[in-house]
Amino acid sequence: MERLPLQHWKTVSTVDILEDLPWLKLSADHVVLPNGRHIEKFYRLHLPEYAVVVAVTADGLVVMERQYKHAVGEVTENLPAGYLETGESPVNAAKRELLEETGFEAPTWRCLGSFCVDGNRGCGRIHAFVASGARKVADPVEQDTEQLEIILKKPRDAFKLLVEGRIRTAGPALTLGLAFILPQSPLFPADMMG
Amino acid sequence: MERLPLQHWKTVSTVDILEDLPWLKLSADHVVLPNGRHIEKFYRLHLPEYAVVVAVTADGLVVMERQYKHAVGEVTENLPAGYLETGESPVNAAKRELLEETGFEAPTWRCLGSFCVDGNRGCGRIHAFVASGARKVADPVEQDTEQLEIILKKPRDAFKLLVEGRIRTAGPALTLGLAFILPQSPLFPADMMG
Repeated sequence: MERLPLQHWKTVSTVDILEDLPWLKLSADHVVLPNGRHIEKFYRLHLPEYAVVVAVTADGLVVMERQYKHAVGEVTENLPAGYLETGESPVNAAKRELLEETGFEAPTWRCLGSFCVDGNRGCGRIHAFVASGARKVADPVEQDTEQLEIILKKPRDAFKLLVEGRIRTAGPALTLGLAFILPQSPLFPADMMG
Repeated sequence: MERLPLQHWKTVSTVDILEDLPWLKLSADHVVLPNGRHIEKFYRLHLPEYAVVVAVTADGLVVMERQYKHAVGEVTENLPAGYLETGESPVNAAKRELLEETGFEAPTWRCLGSFCVDGNRGCGRIHAFVASGARKVADPVEQDTEQLEIILKKPRDAFKLLVEGRIRTAGPALTLGLAFILPQSPLFPADMMG
């Protein structure tokens, strides 16, 4: 069977449906597919980009959080994370959120990758980071909308939370998983159950 | 400092803003936080749940895809995946999508976890699976809206795609990462660079 090479879709026009920045923008693209088919309303969701951090202390502990997340509807184990501010680089957002939420700073940072949250609709981007040598330098900043507990976990226990499904949101689970498999990461190798 | 135990937010009311099922529902919750603060418009995005599959053949190869994803705007390495149909279980959706998209079937399935895509807005759920003993039993079903190439990758090469950031969407990256670290997975252990 002959196959066409993979081609991009063509966006003919875009209609904005709702805009309430910085939280949300909903639009719809009229697209033409490589086979000539038209989809007149292909929804796109623009949500703010965010950074997620696996911070590992000099003692080798992972800085984690417990927090109620409204879309989950429950308290879940989590990682320091937050939206990028306007003009802010992903790594600076990661450093700021780590400091604000936990009071920790770290000298060594590595990006684990940046990912489109939803390949069809968009839904923002995740920027995943791992930091090593983290130490507590301040109290967490009290936040009006976030009530959280900071917990320091041995890598083995953080690993267990991940594989037992107790990290209920995709961005932190992805980031922690990557931190266990990237050879440059302080949590590598991931052979925790061995 | 005394801290309140972690409490759930209370949803006072919900307003539907836009509904175009099965694709999208946008609503806003009026919530009250544990500290008494009101957020009158906390957006919620209801997108369809989807399943993602890491299928490993009897020869130990990973069944992957290359595909244009509109929110990425590029061709990206990907895994078999698709939306759950009404009433369909996650594992059945995973099996159906694997067969439709690639023509592969597998006898042994394991769930790697289910994750809320966005802890604040929702954006659907990811159900992550790994299947072993996969073999080709049919031709892929030609799909009107999906043009894709099927590629069989050695675990080492799939690992490289992941750590080099060439899997551009979060759901497949999360699923593949988990398949490398879960001890029950045919791709474990992940010490690929060793």
